[in-house]
Amino acid sequence: MLSRYDHERGAVMPFLRNAWYIAAWAEEVADAPIARVLLDRPVVLYRLADGTAVALEDRCCHRALPLSLGRVVGDRLQCGYHGLEFDRTGACVNVPGQSTIPPEARIKCYPVVERYRWIWIWMGEPDRADPATVPDFHWLDDPGWVAPTGTFHLAADFQRLIDNLLDFSHVQFVHARTIGTDAVVGSQSKVTRDGNAIEIDRWILDSPPPPLFARAGGFDGNVDRWMNCRFTPPSSVVFDIGCARVGTGAMDGDRGQGIEIRSLHGITPETATSAHYFWGYARDFALDDEAMTAVLRDGARATFAEDVEILAHQQAAIDREVEAPGIDINGDAGALLARRITEELLAAEASD
Amino acid sequence: MLSRYDHERGAVMPFLRNAWYIAAWAEEVADAPIARVLLDRPVVLYRLADGTAVALEDRCCHRALPLSLGRVVGDRLQCGYHGLEFDRTGACVNVPGQSTIPPEARIKCYPVVERYRWIWIWMGEPDRADPATVPDFHWLDDPGWVAPTGTFHLAADFQRLIDNLLDFSHVQFVHARTIGTDAVVGSQSKVTRDGNAIEIDRWILDSPPPPLFARAGGFDGNVDRWMNCRFTPPSSVVFDIGCARVGTGAMDGDRGQGIEIRSLHGITPETATSAHYFWGYARDFALDDEAMTAVLRDGARATFAEDVEILAHQQAAIDREVEAPGIDINGDAGALLARRITEELLAAEASD
Amino acid sequence: MLSRYDHERGAVMPFLRNAWYIAAWAEEVADAPIARVLLDRPVVLYRLADGTAVALEDRCCHRALPLSLGRVVGDRLQCGYHGLEFDRTGACVNVPGQSTIPPEARIKCYPVVERYRWIWIWMGEPDRADPATVPDFHWLDDPGWVAPTGTFHLAADFQRLIDNLLDFSHVQFVHARTIGTDAVVGSQSKVTRDGNAIEIDRWILDSPPPPLFARAGGFDGNVDRWMNCRFTPPSSVVFDIGCARVGTGAMDGDRGQGIEIRSLHGITPETATSAHYFWGYARDFALDDEAMTAVLRDGARATFAEDVEILAHQQAAIDREVEAPGIDINGDAGALLARRITEELLAAEASD
Repeated sequence: MLSRYDHERGAVMPFLRNAWYIAAWAEEVADAPIARVLLDRPVVLYRLADGTAVALEDRCCHRALPLSLGRVVGDRLQCGYHGLEFDRTGACVNVPGQSTIPPEARIKCYPVVERYRWIWIWMGEPDRADPATVPDFHWLDDPGWVAPTGTFHLAADFQRLIDNLLDFSHVQFVHARTIGTDAVVGSQSKVTRDGNAIEIDRWILDSPPPPLFARAGGFDGNVDRWMNCRFTPPSSVVFDIGCARVGTGAMDGDRGQGIEIRSLHGITPETATSAHYFWGYARDFALDDEAMTAVLRDGARATFAEDVEILAHQQAAIDREVEAPGIDINGDAGALLARRITEELLAAEASD
Repeated sequence: MLSRYDHERGAVMPFLRNAWYIAAWAEEVADAPIARVLLDRPVVLYRLADGTAVALEDRCCHRALPLSLGRVVGDRLQCGYHGLEFDRTGACVNVPGQSTIPPEARIKCYPVVERYRWIWIWMGEPDRADPATVPDFHWLDDPGWVAPTGTFHLAADFQRLIDNLLDFSHVQFVHARTIGTDAVVGSQSKVTRDGNAIEIDRWILDSPPPPLFARAGGFDGNVDRWMNCRFTPPSSVVFDIGCARVGTGAMDGDRGQGIEIRSLHGITPETATSAHYFWGYARDFALDDEAMTAVLRDGARATFAEDVEILAHQQAAIDREVEAPGIDINGDAGALLARRITEELLAAEASD
Repeated sequence: MLSRYDHERGAVMPFLRNAWYIAAWAEEVADAPIARVLLDRPVVLYRLADGTAVALEDRCCHRALPLSLGRVVGDRLQCGYHGLEFDRTGACVNVPGQSTIPPEARIKCYPVVERYRWIWIWMGEPDRADPATVPDFHWLDDPGWVAPTGTFHLAADFQRLIDNLLDFSHVQFVHARTIGTDAVVGSQSKVTRDGNAIEIDRWILDSPPPPLFARAGGFDGNVDRWMNCRFTPPSSVVFDIGCARVGTGAMDGDRGQGIEIRSLHGITPETATSAHYFWGYARDFALDDEAMTAVLRDGARATFAEDVEILAHQQAAIDREVEAPGIDINGDAGALLARRITEELLAAEASD
């Protein structure tokens, strides 16, 4: 269960390709083309004159130079070596010095959708790229929420981070310096499969609020707290964290008396052992309190950085001995279910 | 056509071995032995007491230490580990502490010729090493010419640089900041095979001289310009660039009314994906004008550095996906012919 | 004979596993666990509450995190990811959040012995780990001796350093700046096999003492000098160096009129091409002379550093061309015998 190396297949596990992945923050793609390796493929992102984001293969079909080293000319991307120009579909539409263009002169084009401050890319069969299936991260640009954000480069298989996010039992040890002193640890969580998504719920009833929530919500007594998370394959995880005054119906769905945070995690594989980790930390209270924004941004970033560090060490240890066996523990229930669902989806993709 | 990886052979293309390559600038080989990897082989260069340059295998036949870490003792090279001494033929002639020397105690010796300020090495069959076949680069030490020079380490297959030098169509894009604004781009070039060499000629008749030539030649009207180059396998390229007053017969061979530059390029493979790039930029006018020497040196160096940078990116992209197909364009005619000639020579070498 | 690559086996030579190796200096293992790769295996060293040193596999059996990133809790080592705890035998004795522990939840445990200021580790069959067979290095903590010490990281197969230590003929060349001017070079050495150990003896009779010995021993005339060494497989080498007034019986075993140094070398493979090199330089005279301690420490360290540098270059050259043949010389007699004994022991271990 540790590695992308799959003992039964005798090979490295492939990535799910028919899925939306986050390619970049919208503001990262501006005047100049940018290069990014996604799912082991070189991709170049740029914008058309009307602002539409485009994703193409980052490799000229002539002499292989990354097109991200070239420049945008109108709606075209021009290679920096011999000036070949490609349109938004990846077709070569100009070869300087000659009037005809070979029909095979084209590069891959990937469907993209710009939503929730992210540019999403679809690297599987283009016909299946349905914008309606982009995972919900509306808290990033919903005016009722404020979300500090950030990005990490993860030196590990993205699946390691999914394992980590779906497992609450590491919090006490990895985050001892940040959020690990939380009284949450002893409680039990409930893991539920919802189609191909997973819900993990945990409630701590009638207990004192953590200091941050106490300050933000003005609570003067005990609260009912929740720590729920939802995983959507291949690699989206949304935490719904919050608390409300005891007995005001939060557990029944009425959160009007409470405050909420959404801890947002989108991960895109770079290679088999590295990933782009995009995060946000949204709240629906104290929207104009910039000091609180700073506190939450710094706290979230420090906490996630602890995971990023641990996972790099874990990946290095796995790489040293890729076929070693290991054990699972109770806390792995969510992660193991996520792995099973991913394998089901991989099998379905392989048999298409 | 992109990679040394040859799909038909299913293997990396070998280097032509029965050929002269530049090992070093003459002044690089002085008192101490120097190490250089050439054609994937470790070579040590040193000088005999009479100044003759010698090239030996840079690996002691006893415990493998590079002999370049040792020292020159008279005409011998002494290993820095156990003191074994080798003569100019690679024979071990002294083993400290014993009177007999095993007959197999010898290292490879490579023929060398010192010519045109370069030390040339022959790494194929020694019997075929004919100094008469060293490519002509006499402009480097001809008193009628002045040549600033330089060296680059190229992080790419040397063949990428041959492709680059024999293709004029990249100039407008790669050298936009240096020589790319040249009006030369629209003109046509003529590619001719001359035995195993290639001539590529380009003439621009009756047009204004570029500013540098105008200044240097004192031209007050239009000129006939030429940009010719000659490739000699495996890796020598000489550009003959210049202009003369219109109608003074330059195209018929009389350049007496003109000025000329020779842009000189000698490339030696280091490994399959790196090379030593030796260059010179010779002129036959304003020989004592040191300001012009500086202008030409800086301009040539900056221009060639642009190629070196592009080619490193190109090689990295090729290495990422070594078997990917690609297209050719009209501007590749010279490069494709050079590749064909090289393959003919490799086939001949393999069947010897 | 050059490489761990064994042509007959067609594989890299294994390490002798049923043997004691030095894991660390005793003082390196203090409050926090330390990580070290030994014989290509990740090992974590820590101390129990009573000070006993323990060596375990440095990899949690759950999610592979190195346990050296965790912390010591009483006599247990606690993983820094999910808090699993392991006792001194490698058994997992606590999984936070659950009451049962899977029986396969255990990691490797290696026998250790703390002796002569070193922590020794046995990475073969635990049942064979007999503390009585730890090689003798008592000079490191014998009150009759004073020993400056040090450690190098060697970027070479440990066998290269055994070759080096058992060969006196390199001294003149590698140590020309330190001890290489010694008149010892011309003399002959005697190589003797003693079970699986090797003795190499060399005597220089009736000659002037080297300056250091002259000063330390107060000699006013010629001395009888000895340079003996003893190799114990797999990787211990003790030099017995000294001198005594001529004719006082040193060669017959009476060294009462002389002074002695023990140059102590223990090497532990890290990987096939790197090693931990532990050394000491003990003397039985001028015990309280701190200036002499400093002189000997600096001299020994500088000398051994020359070997470390040479061997890294040698290893790189071997790695470049791992199957190249080579010659042996007379000075290799001790090293070749050590290799033969090691191969006998490897064959015996393989047939067990």
